[in-house]
Amino acid sequence: MAALLLVFELIGTVAFAVSGAMTGLKKGMDLFGVSILGISCAVGGGIIRDLLLGITPPTTFLHPIYAAVAAVTALAVFLPPVRARVSATNRIFELLLLVMDSVGLGVFTVIGISTAASAGQSGNVFLMAFVGVITGVGGGVLRDVLAGNTPYIFIKHIYAVASLAGALPCAVLWNYIPHYALMLVSAALVITIRFLAAHYRWSLPK
Amino acid sequence: MAALLLVFELIGTVAFAVSGAMTGLKKGMDLFGVSILGISCAVGGGIIRDLLLGITPPTTFLHPIYAAVAAVTALAVFLPPVRARVSATNRIFELLLLVMDSVGLGVFTVIGISTAASAGQSGNVFLMAFVGVITGVGGGVLRDVLAGNTPYIFIKHIYAVASLAGALPCAVLWNYIPHYALMLVSAALVITIRFLAAHYRWSLPK
Amino acid sequence: MAALLLVFELIGTVAFAVSGAMTGLKKGMDLFGVSILGISCAVGGGIIRDLLLGITPPTTFLHPIYAAVAAVTALAVFLPPVRARVSATNRIFELLLLVMDSVGLGVFTVIGISTAASAGQSGNVFLMAFVGVITGVGGGVLRDVLAGNTPYIFIKHIYAVASLAGALPCAVLWNYIPHYALMLVSAALVITIRFLAAHYRWSLPK
Repeated sequence: MAALLLVFELIGTVAFAVSGAMTGLKKGMDLFGVSILGISCAVGGGIIRDLLLGITPPTTFLHPIYAAVAAVTALAVFLPPVRARVSATNRIFELLLLVMDSVGLGVFTVIGISTAASAGQSGNVFLMAFVGVITGVGGGVLRDVLAGNTPYIFIKHIYAVASLAGALPCAVLWNYIPHYALMLVSAALVITIRFLAAHYRWSLPK
Repeated sequence: MAALLLVFELIGTVAFAVSGAMTGLKKGMDLFGVSILGISCAVGGGIIRDLLLGITPPTTFLHPIYAAVAAVTALAVFLPPVRARVSATNRIFELLLLVMDSVGLGVFTVIGISTAASAGQSGNVFLMAFVGVITGVGGGVLRDVLAGNTPYIFIKHIYAVASLAGALPCAVLWNYIPHYALMLVSAALVITIRFLAAHYRWSLPK
Repeated sequence: MAALLLVFELIGTVAFAVSGAMTGLKKGMDLFGVSILGISCAVGGGIIRDLLLGITPPTTFLHPIYAAVAAVTALAVFLPPVRARVSATNRIFELLLLVMDSVGLGVFTVIGISTAASAGQSGNVFLMAFVGVITGVGGGVLRDVLAGNTPYIFIKHIYAVASLAGALPCAVLWNYIPHYALMLVSAALVITIRFLAAHYRWSLPK
């Protein structure tokens, strides 16, 4: 379980670091700006989650691995061959970014729920789902506020809704289904809904 | 006392949910964006307050009633007949929004002070007043930062000043006057100052 | 040691209050807006630091001296003779602002590390450096997000990098060198790098 969580968290970290770094590139930021946005997006959701649950210092501060992975990922995105494709708005690249962002959203949503349960809140379905969604979307909101963009959650219609759609069953079924399987299925649900919504341009009433 | 606090908090929640939802409508957001802004504005001040006082998880996360009331309120604002009036910038509607926002500001300011006192800080006047003002204006600041607007507190001149004008006497007199009466009078003071300032366009030196 | 820390923190508070207040003036804000930005910038980094370390209520809330010094400083900046020079973008004034901002960055970076060590984290180099940088740049980021500007750390190239350059040796050597000397040298390092980078327009690859 612990090993699975670590793998999950590293995948989400890489995914969101790519997303944050690419946002920095699109804004014409220098190496440091790109790194800060990559790291903020990757660890921001987890820091907010830990503060809400009273876990201080936040886990990110105790385990350099997450910030280090995010920094290396951001540097890789900054390399000239990668940058060139970003500016060319290559289609495959756009698709890759969508996949990464969806994976990060799904992974961090279920990790948020798992962390809330470990913090003694496994009997509180509402809290677990709420914390899950905030963990899932928090990094992206921090990224957008820092970069001066309107947060993604207000523009990409089915974004927080996708997180919520996975968070609710995960929180409700937490005490009845093995966590390992439940987290995998719930994360997959978030990723699928987010991906389909982006591909078929689903949207909510306006 | 507890029942009064609950009624107060629900009034403030509805008031700020309306204010957040209307900000979303004016930005042309979809149903989900409007809901998120409504909920953020309604519960944001309380979450910041609890984090500052070391109350984790924040009360909002333990009692779904507040987020639920905010969500239902935001949905109601989103209904076509309501929306139509918002876009027409109906005068009565503008007035109602001003009233709601003033009520929310006054109510959350005194609830912030009451929460700080309950958290063992009743001997610290400065802290109580500071926490009161942050609780009062916090939800609106979160709403504006998320929506990409310049925070209201920098534009509406007598806003945080009104909150402070009610917070100071409330914090100073906390240990000398029955809390029930003190909170009512202090909240009324905030609401009156805010309302008169908006109506007569009072402003500070520029 | 305690007296030195107090002097340090007051210097940083004045420096950042000036920087926040001048940002407000440049945005054409009124007296209250200028005060809020000055106070937010001066105490914001410390509040974020304390929340991350689990120190609640944050020190700023227990000792009114910091917010009071920041408020008086902001008021002084708002006085007509001062304001006139700000709008004239007087060269000496620009230089003074740069000096103040560099001093605040250096001072808050080492105070962040010292606070983390006092909170029982002196064995965790990564955490101390991370908290130091966040304390150093946090107030400025809060100022810029509230004012609706792109955060300074993304524009002034060697800014967070300067903080990090002082934070790393300070955190690594914390258990081996007297704190008094280490903090002075580390803060001086941050200030020097920041100042030279601004003067000679050093920048990172773009």
